[in-house]
Parts: sequence; structure tokens; C-alpha cells
Amino acid sequence: MSLPTRVTLCDVGPRDGLQNEKQLVSAAHKLELIDRLQAAGVRRLEATSFVSPKWVPQMGDAADVMSGLQKRHGVAVAVLVPNEKGMDAALPFAPDEIVVFTAASEAFTQKNINCSIAESIERFGPVITKAKAAGIKVRAALSCCLGCPYEGEISAAQVGAVAARLAAIGVDHLSVSDTIGVGTPRKVQAALEAALRHFPMHELSGHYHDTYGQALANVYASLELGVSTFDASVGGLGGCPYAKGATGNVATEELVYLMQGLGIDTGIDLDALVNTAAFISGVLGRPPASRAARALLAKRA
Amino acid sequence: MSLPTRVTLCDVGPRDGLQNEKQLVSAAHKLELIDRLQAAGVRRLEATSFVSPKWVPQMGDAADVMSGLQKRHGVAVAVLVPNEKGMDAALPFAPDEIVVFTAASEAFTQKNINCSIAESIERFGPVITKAKAAGIKVRAALSCCLGCPYEGEISAAQVGAVAARLAAIGVDHLSVSDTIGVGTPRKVQAALEAALRHFPMHELSGHYHDTYGQALANVYASLELGVSTFDASVGGLGGCPYAKGATGNVATEELVYLMQGLGIDTGIDLDALVNTAAFISGVLGRPPASRAARALLAKRA
Repeated sequence: MSLPTRVTLCDVGPRDGLQNEKQLVSAAHKLELIDRLQAAGVRRLEATSFVSPKWVPQMGDAADVMSGLQKRHGVAVAVLVPNEKGMDAALPFAPDEIVVFTAASEAFTQKNINCSIAESIERFGPVITKAKAAGIKVRAALSCCLGCPYEGEISAAQVGAVAARLAAIGVDHLSVSDTIGVGTPRKVQAALEAALRHFPMHELSGHYHDTYGQALANVYASLELGVSTFDASVGGLGGCPYAKGATGNVATEELVYLMQGLGIDTGIDLDALVNTAAFISGVLGRPPASRAARALLAKRA
Repeated sequence: MSLPTRVTLCDVGPRDGLQNEKQLVSAAHKLELIDRLQAAGVRRLEATSFVSPKWVPQMGDAADVMSGLQKRHGVAVAVLVPNEKGMDAALPFAPDEIVVFTAASEAFTQKNINCSIAESIERFGPVITKAKAAGIKVRAALSCCLGCPYEGEISAAQVGAVAARLAAIGVDHLSVSDTIGVGTPRKVQAALEAALRHFPMHELSGHYHDTYGQALANVYASLELGVSTFDASVGGLGGCPYAKGATGNVATEELVYLMQGLGIDTGIDLDALVNTAAFISGVLGRPPASRAARALLAKRA
């Protein structure tokens, strides 16, 4: 089976990664992180979230981050918007993409955003209208596609049903997210296949957390299906909010290492990326969570 | 592609894992570790090494471990023997298997055991004769099949050439080892395919270190080839001697998690295995290195 020859990695460290970090990181450090990621060759990133600072204090500086951000050539910057108010706050900064989010699990949607999946998608209506009017691409992050901390396993059929609704209201790109990292390769392939009935291959991302160490096996299984866009977080930033002390996002450098070994082009310089992981881990006062970063840094020492 | 329905996991924690731990572990703790592994359902394990305690002080209690070991029904116990002297020391304990070791890299063999690959295999001659006479199965651990800390990348052809010699002198089972964890799925498949020209599928093991986080992706790629035996180390015991601060063996519990998700039977109880990881990590005074163990323990807390 031939694998994709090129893969796009979207670094979600500045948003999904930092959002789960208790220690507040300054806007200046976030901007340095974003700049270093771009310098390392990252061409797609999630910069921040226009969510209420009451919910997520770490993202309270969204406007500062967006006004300070110096975008390099060819980079697409995404921001998370939870609702129309967030969209209105994001619009002046002309992001390339917005990310709306819901889940494949009813229980998770209720607990996380206090409404049903159907209601959450309805609320996207005015947000998507504004995005389309402004020429902004709409990405949906679909949480809990492999399992839910409240419901347990989620079926591929359920992923397909929610993906269909998201495609119907004008979402351009879907991230199939394994929010709690419980997926394994064949189940991940089944979830992706269900989503692929509603989104074309190049508009589908895999977003896998590494809570149980399965993320890279899941990425490899996704490549075998032809998936060529993945979310990841430099340094493995971001713990798992559903299991304290456990790991969150898969580390971008481990994906780059995998792709290099498979002869797949990512456009990213691994050494520069590892330096970026060391930088942000230094800001947070701890070693990088990623094995690849730790091993590469240890080899240099 | 259909995967194997059953997989045998050989826990190398008591030997390959502990051997890289600086802190000396008592024979009593090693015996409790071995007993807990068997109780969790592990049916193949590497118990100790009859190597000179000058080289590996941690294995200085090999005789105590073997005389204290209470083997459960259906369990195969392997011990490492570096030479004829080690074999003579091991024989009174009637191990089920002995493990001899060499490498697919000339430079590594020179630095590690101070001879050429050919010489290292010649030295196996009398060891293998004694093993066969005693009805003991001979396994060879072939280090550096994917890369060498001194030589860099190792070709699949080289792995095949050394595998051929090992088969010729009567080795029954081959462990294709990625000693420094640099392998990625397609290269691992190529190394395995080269070895499979000289060993039947059921006499081939994958032994992958998780230094760069690639081990589980490599296991999945090996399953796709039909490989159904893997080495792993409970709790991810054992650092990487070639990159201080980096990870060594892939954790048995991460393999069990993967196999469960794939519907593959291992006969191992994941909860009991995680308790075993917590036990030996407690002895070493630190949390388990494995993500799966940390996440499962955190969920319980």
C-alpha cells in the first residue's frame, strides 16, 4: 500500500496544548512559540481561542496574540471560536481558518458545552455564515470520535452521522479527534472511513491524543488509508484533562520523526522543532513530554 | 489485511529492563516482579542474565533469581548467556530458553563485545551444542537491526545476512531488535522480511525500543506482516544506554492496550500488569515510564 508523499502537520500547541496548562504563559512567549514554529517550517497552526477567559484563562490574551502575530509566507493561522460572540471578536484579526467544535458523544457535549450535539451544530449557523462572508475557511473539531470519558466507546456510525451534519451546514474541513486517546489503529480507520463518506480526503485531519501511547500507531494506520493532515502539539504540550498526570496531544516532533523515516515530506526541520519544544518546555519549567524531543536533546548533551 | 488473532508477549523487564537501571534491585524484588508478571498472564519472560557481574552488577544475583523462581504452568523462562561460561552457570537451573546475542552492526559488535559479528557467532557454537543436548531452545537477540549508535542506518540486507548465519548454526528463534529505537514502520517491515527468509514466522520476534516514540507504530506494522511475538518490558523498564534521559524498551502494557483494541488475544490482564508496573516502579522510586500505566493509574486515583 503506498502512503501519501506529503503530509501537512497543524501545530495546535499554542492553543490546544497551552490551554490545558495551568501555568499562565505570557502573550510574548506565545508569540515567540508561534514564530519559532513557523521558522521550523510549520505551515498550519492553531494560534489561540476566542473563548471567554472565565472558561479558559490561558486564552484571555487572544487579541494580544493575534495582533502581535507575524505570519510568514504560506502559513495558515486558525483560531478557535466557540460561538458568535467569539467569531465577532476574532473577525478583526482576519484568521485564515476558524475552528468550531462539537463531539461525537452526546454525554460529552452536554457536560462540555451544555447542549445536545444537534444544538451545538445549530449554533454554528451564524458563525459559519460570517466566516463564509469573510472568506475564512471553517474547520470543525469533532471530539471523542473513538471514545468518551462518560459514554465509553463511540461507534464509527455515530462519527459518520455527526460528520454528515457538519458537512451539510458548510464545514470545510473535519478533524477526527481522539480526545482521550483510547483509539487503536483499526477503530481509528473505521472512524476515518465513516467521516470520509462526507468529507474529501484532503479535508480530513487526524487529531490523536497519546494518553495510552497509541497515537503514532494510529497515525500510521491513517496514512495507510491516505489521510495526509494531522494535528499535533510541539513538545507534546497539554496534559489530559480527563486523567490528571497523563499525556495529552501527540508531539509534533514524533510525527515528524515518523514521516522522515517513511520518506514523507512535512516541510518541517526536526532540529528546529526540537529547539522549539525545548524553548516552550523551558517556559513551563519542565522537560518536554515527548520521547523524541527528550532523546534528541539527550544525544546533543 | 487480517492481523494475527493471538500474540505472545515476552516480558524482558526482569533482564533487559532492570539491567539498564543503575539502582540495584534485590533478588526478592526481582522474584516478586517475575511472580506478578506470571500472575498477570505473561507466559514468556526473560528472567536474568548469566553474565559477569563485573560487566552488569544488576545481574550478579542470577543464581539466586533462578533458584527462587517459581514457574507457573505453561510459562517459558529464558536467560541470557553471553558465552560458554555463562551457559555452564545457567544449565543447573534448566531454563526453557537461552538467549545469545550479537548485532547486525560490525561497529556495535566490536564496541559491545569486542569481536566481529562472525566471531561472535562462532563463539555460540559450544553454547548451542550444550543447549541442544539439554533440550533447551536457543533464541538469538540481534541488536541494531534498524540502526547503530556508531554506524548509523543498517540495511535489511545486512539483517538478512546475519539471520542466515544464525539459522545455519542452529538458532531456533530470532529477535529482530531495534536497540536504539530509530526504526519506523516500513524500515522495520523490510528488516523483518529479510529475517523471515531464514526463520519461520512463529520463530521471529519484534523487539523495539521506544526511544523516539515509534515502537507501537512499528509493532502495528509488524502485525500487518503476520509477526505474532514481541518483546516488551513491564512499566517500560530500562532507560536507553545510548541516550541518557531517553526511553528504552517499549512498555508491555502499551502493547497489551494495542492488542486489546485490535481484538488480539495476549492472555494478559491489563489491570494486573499495570499493578505490576506500579510495583516495580515503586521499588525504583519513580512513576512508570509508560503512558498507558500512568493514564490507567491516574484514572483510578
